[in-house]
Parts: sequence; structure tokens; C-alpha cells
Amino acid sequence: MIILKKNKSMYLSWLQEVCNQPSVSTQNRGMKEMIELVKKHLKTTSAEIVEIETDGYPVIFGEIDGRRERTLTFYNHYDVQPEDPIDLWESDPFKTEFRDGLIFARGVADNKGNLMARICAIHAYQQVYGNLPLNIKFIFEGEEEIGSPHLEQFADQHPEKMSTDGIIWEGGTKGVFDGKLHVGLGVKGMCYVELTAKGANSDLHSSEAAVIENPAWRLIWALNTIKNDDEVILIDGFYDNIKPSSILENEYLNLMDYKEEELLEKYGLKNFLLNLSGQELKNKLLFQPTCTICGIDSGYTDVGSKTVLPSIAKVKLDFRLVPDQEPEEILQLLRNHLNQQGYEDIEIDFLNGIQPFKTDPGDPLAETVLNNVQKVYDKPPKVLVNLAGSSPMYKLCKKDNIPAVQIGVANDQSNYHAPNENIFVKDYMDGIKMTATVMHEFAKVKS
Amino acid sequence: MIILKKNKSMYLSWLQEVCNQPSVSTQNRGMKEMIELVKKHLKTTSAEIVEIETDGYPVIFGEIDGRRERTLTFYNHYDVQPEDPIDLWESDPFKTEFRDGLIFARGVADNKGNLMARICAIHAYQQVYGNLPLNIKFIFEGEEEIGSPHLEQFADQHPEKMSTDGIIWEGGTKGVFDGKLHVGLGVKGMCYVELTAKGANSDLHSSEAAVIENPAWRLIWALNTIKNDDEVILIDGFYDNIKPSSILENEYLNLMDYKEEELLEKYGLKNFLLNLSGQELKNKLLFQPTCTICGIDSGYTDVGSKTVLPSIAKVKLDFRLVPDQEPEEILQLLRNHLNQQGYEDIEIDFLNGIQPFKTDPGDPLAETVLNNVQKVYDKPPKVLVNLAGSSPMYKLCKKDNIPAVQIGVANDQSNYHAPNENIFVKDYMDGIKMTATVMHEFAKVKS
Repeated sequence: MIILKKNKSMYLSWLQEVCNQPSVSTQNRGMKEMIELVKKHLKTTSAEIVEIETDGYPVIFGEIDGRRERTLTFYNHYDVQPEDPIDLWESDPFKTEFRDGLIFARGVADNKGNLMARICAIHAYQQVYGNLPLNIKFIFEGEEEIGSPHLEQFADQHPEKMSTDGIIWEGGTKGVFDGKLHVGLGVKGMCYVELTAKGANSDLHSSEAAVIENPAWRLIWALNTIKNDDEVILIDGFYDNIKPSSILENEYLNLMDYKEEELLEKYGLKNFLLNLSGQELKNKLLFQPTCTICGIDSGYTDVGSKTVLPSIAKVKLDFRLVPDQEPEEILQLLRNHLNQQGYEDIEIDFLNGIQPFKTDPGDPLAETVLNNVQKVYDKPPKVLVNLAGSSPMYKLCKKDNIPAVQIGVANDQSNYHAPNENIFVKDYMDGIKMTATVMHEFAKVKS
Repeated sequence: MIILKKNKSMYLSWLQEVCNQPSVSTQNRGMKEMIELVKKHLKTTSAEIVEIETDGYPVIFGEIDGRRERTLTFYNHYDVQPEDPIDLWESDPFKTEFRDGLIFARGVADNKGNLMARICAIHAYQQVYGNLPLNIKFIFEGEEEIGSPHLEQFADQHPEKMSTDGIIWEGGTKGVFDGKLHVGLGVKGMCYVELTAKGANSDLHSSEAAVIENPAWRLIWALNTIKNDDEVILIDGFYDNIKPSSILENEYLNLMDYKEEELLEKYGLKNFLLNLSGQELKNKLLFQPTCTICGIDSGYTDVGSKTVLPSIAKVKLDFRLVPDQEPEEILQLLRNHLNQQGYEDIEIDFLNGIQPFKTDPGDPLAETVLNNVQKVYDKPPKVLVNLAGSSPMYKLCKKDNIPAVQIGVANDQSNYHAPNENIFVKDYMDGIKMTATVMHEFAKVKS
């Protein structure tokens, strides 16, 4: 595409301008200025732009309605993580630097590079073809880095703005070593709780433990009823709502390259959980729910011995969920389980709930993306039929079961949320090309 | 005893002098001066005094050999705990103050009051009767507050100095409310360990927990094999060496007043462990070993949620032992148990070992003390056939099975190891009287 060569320095300067503007949602820093800047760039696409108020930062909604048969939506966010620890940055995080073919700035990978690549793709397409082959919607939120607390509110209050044939999602990376674009088709959900067991009203001398109940032991025994050492979660009904993975998903899982030896060496381990490998291991990683102790704390935990009987014990548990498990439902099953096992007294605090979401690889948008990756990147994609991590995907997609596909301009060494965040210049330009290609091809697919 | 009225102010001034001298073993503060002061006061009894070198502070050994049939030994220590937090003291911890019938000073309860009461008792006895009715030995160590690391060395290297018919042990209290002298006849032992489970070489994102082993879960499952929720310790052989309690011990246990309702209210609890009460509860407290989680720690333990897969998990376990369980033996049984259960990888650090020791209430010295308490205190004693806590008693007594009886001048609100440590003037004088009485009566008992 000659147009991309011609416009390259302009598109890079647009990205630079956007990255130079801090927009740290958790600190309310530069958000207003960023909103204006995003709107300015969106205008280059002739989109109709509205700021949709929420109880937090507004959603910038854009629409290019060419009265086409098909509609494609871009979900991105205009906020970024704080830049600390600032000392570890080699250049000013809010003064974009180009070094060795890379672009360094806070937010360039997550996800201002993607946001601008979508806008540039449409700008370039319009310069070449005049009109777009499909209708476009932009949903740019300002609260992704603080958990998207008002994204569902937006979706619920503006059903007409949600109507679409699919969403190209933010995120997505490329493998630095294998050069393959990662295409993400789903994310696990989460039910994060804290359990608390209480004993006497203050810590006591441990000699008293002969006759006074120890909440730490009580918590241990309760946890032991939740998961056994075969990694089976013992909560009644926990697995009931899990949707089996499709044949196509399993095929893609089979194709997925998972560098077992390299990972084991990196982590200093002899084997994976339960000695799994191959397809079983990948299935466990992507399609199976987990119950993880993220933290446990009771009594004296400093150096040496102290003879104390603790008065309280706490554990943080992270359940990763797969479709169609629901966080609130899992919470209730856990409560029922503890009651049945005689642990009515153990308190549960619900700290975080995220629903899982998956798009089938056979969906038209997913197929379009997957079939066109090689054209742009000269290599077939690495298809992640599900991701072990979580994202607010379900908040937009769940209700109408909208397909969502995650592709982007970052790579697996982009330092997300960390100092020296970066992307390759080449990946940014390829991302623009890929976005334009997806629009072009998706418009042709028969419904 | 008229002599005690006459000498009261002198005996108080001796105590004052000894308490005004700091002797903090853990800080090596004032130890030399204290040794000289103890020797000066010991000389008032005409004892032959030697300083026995150890690899730490010396044992001050005194002997009054009147070629009597029977020998009684006094075990005390001349070191004290540090005085911090100094802000909470109402008077200078090393400037003895008399207020409201009480004596305030660091170490007055633990255990300079006892040490001086033994010396004063002999001084008074000698003034009244001339000669003592039995031979006396003094073993005054300077390292009790740092765990008596060289007491066993002393006992092993000086068997002739250990030869005796019984030891009056330091410690011992009086009940402030019931006015009863507590007579202690034994202490539990201890095997204090830290278990460590290790996973990957660094903390990972909790999404990885689908395929990477979690050391926190591993530790939970291992702990669950160590003790079940009926409080039964499941380690093979753990209970094998326990000596059953004697008929007399059980009778005294039966007589022991244990204020169940008051304790439950104080601790904010509805019931004791396993809903025990009465004789069973007291038996559990004094005669049964424990396995207590004193601390457990892994992963993120601050406020809120963090999605982390911990790389390490640690638990501190305090096993309280009863005769004839041995700490080193319990350690080995625990190692065997973990290996048998498939937890060879869980590391054990041995942090502290103390052997249990008990004197039968039917022993002549114990009987002498128990039969004479009412003469001095106008009330029968509260007999503690065993204490839930631990002490280095076994280090002196174990080898020759020397009977040891714990009585003293402190009370159950003396603030041991805490600010405003104190004893009653009356208890100090009664302690002198009680010591003299025990000498007098023990000399008469037929072997």
C-alpha cells in the first residue's frame, strides 16, 4: 500500500502527539486534554463524534454511517497506567522517543498505538477508496486501567450504539521471536474473594492453643475442602455451567505453539502442574477454571520463632472462570459449600468479579481476521482461542453475544504497565495495514 | 516470725539495690556489676561461692555444706529482660520504687525478687537457728532470658554440683484475686519449626496458576495431613512416648480451679476447643501435646486484591510436648511423615527445641511444699501439675530426674517482660517465710 509509505511520518507524528499527552485515569491527570486530542484525530475520519457521559470518564463514541450492510466496531481506551517507577525509564515516559526502530512512551503499547492505528487505517482507506465498505463505530473508554467500572452502564444505556457485527478489541501482541501475530478470541473471567476466620478477640500465647481454637488451622481445613491435591475443585456445582470447547477451538488449541521446555527453564521448574504436557496442558491453561491462593496470612510471619496463637487468619482466592461460569454464581456456590462443610463462621469478602467471554474461531469476523493475517505479516497467526488472563470484553459483548477479536500493534516484550513501554515502528504500520485489510475483507463476507 | 519483722526494711533495701542494677543479658548491660552484687549478697549466708565459666555468662554457684543428710538447691537467674518500651513505665525501671504496697522495677518479679527471697530466707534462718537443717546449693545463671544456652553445659561439666534432693525453681506466681499460691510441678516442652514450600523462581501472574504449581496450596495440603479437625495429630508415632499421668496428678488436676466462663468471656468465645469442659479441658491444657500454627505467610497479604501466583509459602509450627516426647525425635517424625505423604520437597527449619519436664506431686519435695503453703498463706495452694508454657527445667533436672518445684513472690498481674513490672511487698516477705519453712520441713522428711 503506497498510501502508507506516503503517510508514514504523519501517522507516526499523530501517535507521538497522543502519547506525549499524559492521561492517567487513576490520578485524573490530563484526561480532559486527552479527550480533546482523541476527538481531533477522530475527526480526520469524518466520524460523527459524541461524548457519552458516564458516572466516570466519558466514552468517546464515533460513528461513520455509510448505510452499508455491515458494521464493525473498534473498542479502545484513551487512559494509561501511571508511569512509576520513573527512575527506571530511559527517556521521559510522556515525551515519545524513537530509538532503534522502536517507539518508547507510556501507553504506546497499551493502547494508544492501537487506538491511532484504527484511526489511521480508516484515514488511509478513505484516501484510497473514498468511501468505507462498511459502517464503523468507535467506542473509546477512559477507565480501562481502573477496571472499566462504567462500561456496562454505557452498553446498557445505549443499545443502538452497541449494535454491530463484531468488535476489534484492544490488546493483542506479536511474538518478537517467531514474528507471529497473536489473535485473541476470548478471556477467562474471575471471582476474587477473601476468606476470614476469626478466633479469640486478641492474639494469645501459643500455650493456650491446647484449649482455644486456632483460626489458622480452621482456614487450612476449610481450604482443604475447596480443592484437593489432584487440582479438583470440590465445590458442589462448580463445573456445571462450563460450555465444552468446540471442535474448531480444539483444533486451534492443537496448533498453538506452547514452548514447554523454555518456560520450565525460565521458571526454574521440573514439570508443569500434575505433570501435564501437550494438548492437555494447553487445554488446562486456556479452557479450565482455576482456584488460586494469591495470599495467605495469619499470626507471626517475621524472622525466627514467636509463640503466638493468632486471633485471625485470611486467605485471598482467585477463581479464573470459563464460559458460562458467572462470578456471582460461583460466590454463592462457595458460600453454600463452606456452610455445608461446617464453616458458616468463615466470612467471604467479594473483591472482584469479571465474567468470561469467548468468540468461536468459526465466527465470520474471527475467520476474516485469521484468513488475512498472512497477507500482512507473511506468517500465519498464533491463535489464542482463549487467554488465561481477564478483560472487560464481556461488558460490551455478553448481552448480544457480539463477536470480539483481539489484534494489535504491541509485542510480547512491550513492557505493558512497566517502564520503557514500547512498540516497533514496523508493527504500528503493519497494524494500520491489518486494520484496513480486515475492514476491506469483512465487508465482502456474506452474512 | 519476729525476725522477718525486724529485718524487713533491710531485706527490702537489699532487693532495691539488686533491682537498681541493670543486668540485661541480651544487651550485655551491667552483667559484671550484677555478678559482683549477687556474690556480695550470697556472702551474707556464709556460702562458698564460685563463678563457673561457661561459653556465655558464668553460673554463680554457691554452697553451704553443713554435712546434713539432705540437700536443697535453688535455681534462679540474675539477668533480666530489656526495659523497652520505656515510655510506658511510670517510674525508672532501674530505680526501684515503692508505691501502694507494691515494688516496681525491671526484674523484681522475674526473678530478682525470688533470688533475694532465697538468700534472705537463709540469712533469717541462720539468725534464728544458727545452723541450717540441710545443705544448700545455689545455681544462679545469667542467661535465662536468652534461652539458657549454656545451662546444660554447666550441668554436664559439674555433676558434683548438680547432686541434690530437689530444686526450688524460679518463677511461680500468686493469684491476685483468690490469694492462692500457685505451685508449679512441670512444664511442657517445645519443638518449633518453620516449613517452606517453593514453586517457580519468582512470583507470577495468577493466570499462570492453571499450569504452574502453587506452593501455598501445597503447604495447605501438607498441613492438612499433619492435624485433622478433631485436633488429632496424624504424624506416625507422635503419641507413642507419652507417659500417662499418675493418679495423684489427676486428682490434683481435678482440684484445680479453671475459670471457664470468665476465660471465655475474656477471650470473646462461645466455647473451648472441641467443646471441652471440666476435667477433659484441664487435661487437654496441661497433659496433652499440641500442634499450633503460630504464623503462615504466602503471596500478597495487603489490602484488596492482587492477582499473583506466589513462589514461596511458609508456616511456623509450635508443637508443645509432654513427657517423654523429645523435640529432636518429633522433628524426625515430622520429616518422615512429610516424606511418606509425598512432601519431600517441603523444607523444615528447626527453630527451637525444649524438652518437657514434670515432678510427681507425690515426690517428697513437692509434698513438703504443698503441705506447708497454708501455714504461710492461710489458703491451700493452687497446684499446677504441669504448665502449658515451657522453661529450661529439664536442662538441670532431666538427667538425674531431680524433682523441681516452682514457687515464687510474683503474682498473676506482675507484668513479666512488660512495663511497670512489680510484686507486692507482702508477697516478697511471705516468699522469704515460705522458703524458710520449706527448708525447715524438708529437712525432717524421711528419705
